Amino acid sequence: MKNTQASTAASRGPADHEVRNQIVAAATEHFSLYGYEKTTVSDLAKAIGFSKAYIYKFFESKQAIGEMICANCLLEIENDVRAAVDEAEGAPEKLRRMFKTIVKSSLRLFFQDRKLYEIAASAAGERWAATVAYEQRIQGLLRDILQQGRLNGDFERKTPLDETAKAIYLVLHPYLHPLILQYNFDNTEEAPAHLSSLVLRSLAP
Amino acid sequence: MKNTQASTAASRGPADHEVRNQIVAAATEHFSLYGYEKTTVSDLAKAIGFSKAYIYKFFESKQAIGEMICANCLLEIENDVRAAVDEAEGAPEKLRRMFKTIVKSSLRLFFQDRKLYEIAASAAGERWAATVAYEQRIQGLLRDILQQGRLNGDFERKTPLDETAKAIYLVLHPYLHPLILQYNFDNTEEAPAHLSSLVLRSLAP
Repeated sequence: MKNTQASTAASRGPADHEVRNQIVAAATEHFSLYGYEKTTVSDLAKAIGFSKAYIYKFFESKQAIGEMICANCLLEIENDVRAAVDEAEGAPEKLRRMFKTIVKSSLRLFFQDRKLYEIAASAAGERWAATVAYEQRIQGLLRDILQQGRLNGDFERKTPLDETAKAIYLVLHPYLHPLILQYNFDNTEEAPAHLSSLVLRSLAP
Repeated sequence: MKNTQASTAASRGPADHEVRNQIVAAATEHFSLYGYEKTTVSDLAKAIGFSKAYIYKFFESKQAIGEMICANCLLEIENDVRAAVDEAEGAPEKLRRMFKTIVKSSLRLFFQDRKLYEIAASAAGERWAATVAYEQRIQGLLRDILQQGRLNGDFERKTPLDETAKAIYLVLHPYLHPLILQYNFDNTEEAPAHLSSLVLRSLAP
C-alpha cells in the first residue's frame, strides 16, 4: 500500500497525493454511513463536493477507492500483528501472539464499528489485490517466525518448511478472512489459544 | 434423525411415517427446482397435490420440512465418513480419512448438484437442531478415533483429551460448515492432506 502511494505520489506530485487521501477519507466516512455497495461515484462526488470527473482523475473506479480503504484497514491489522510479534520473546510465543492478535484485530476492524466490514468482505470475496497482498505478507511473517524457531531449535526441521507454513496458514485463514470470520464468532474467544497450542505441539522438535 | 423418525412413527403409526417421507421427497424435489427460501408451504401443497392443512398435520412449518431434508443430507455425509473411517486401519489413517471424506462428501452434497446448499446454508447459519446434532456426532467420532489412538500408543496422552479434541475440531470445522466451505474452494484439493498431517504431527507421542 505504502509503495503504491509513494509511486503514485512521485509521478503526480505531492499535491495529488493529498487529494487522494482526502477522497479516501471522505469516502470512508460516506461508505460507513450509507454502505459501500449502494453508493455510486456520483453520490460520493456530491457528498465530497468534487465533480465526478475530478474524482475519476485520481481513482479509476469506486472499487479503486474501496481498495485503498481496504488496504489501509488491512495494513492496520498487519501493524497490530507485527507489533505483537515483535514484542514477544522466542518463536513459540511469537506464534501465539500472531494467532491472538490476528483474531482480535480483525474482529475490531471488520466488525466492531462495522464500518469496514462491507468493503473488506467484497475485497476478500472478490480477491482484490489488497487482500491478496495482505495474505501474502501474513504468510511471509509466519514463515519468518517458523524459520527463526527452526534456527533456535524450538521447532522441528524434518517437515519441509513450505509444507509446515502452508498447513499452519490453512489453520489461520478462517480467522483472517472477514467473510469466514463472521461464522466463527462463537469460537473467537477460545480458538486462538487452542489452535496455536495445537500448532505448537505439531512443531515440537 | 433416525431417532426422531422412529419416535414420531411410534406415536403416529407407520402410515404417518410414510406420508412424512412422501412430503419430504416431494419437497426436496420442489426446493431443488424453485429454491428453499422462495417456496412457501402453500406452493409446496399445490405442487404435491396435498392441502396446506394436511401438510401442517405432519410438519409444523416449512423449516421443519427443511430440517428433515437437511438431516437426511447430513446423515449421508456422516455415513460416508463413518464408512471411510471404519475401512481404515489404525487411528492415524482413520483421522486422515475423516478429514478427506468430510471435505469430499460435503462438497458433493452441498455444492455438486447445488440442490441442498441453500437449505444446508440456512441450517448452518441459523444453527438448526439437525446441524447442531450432526456437529456433535462428528465431534464424537473424532473423540473415538483420538481415544483409540491413545490406547494403541499412536497418539500422545499428555494433553487433556478434551483440549485435543476441541482444537482438532476447530481445524476441521471450516470444511464441514457449508457457508464457510464456499470460501475454501481454492483449498479443498490440498487442505485435507495438509491439515491432517499437521494434526498428526501434533498428536505424535
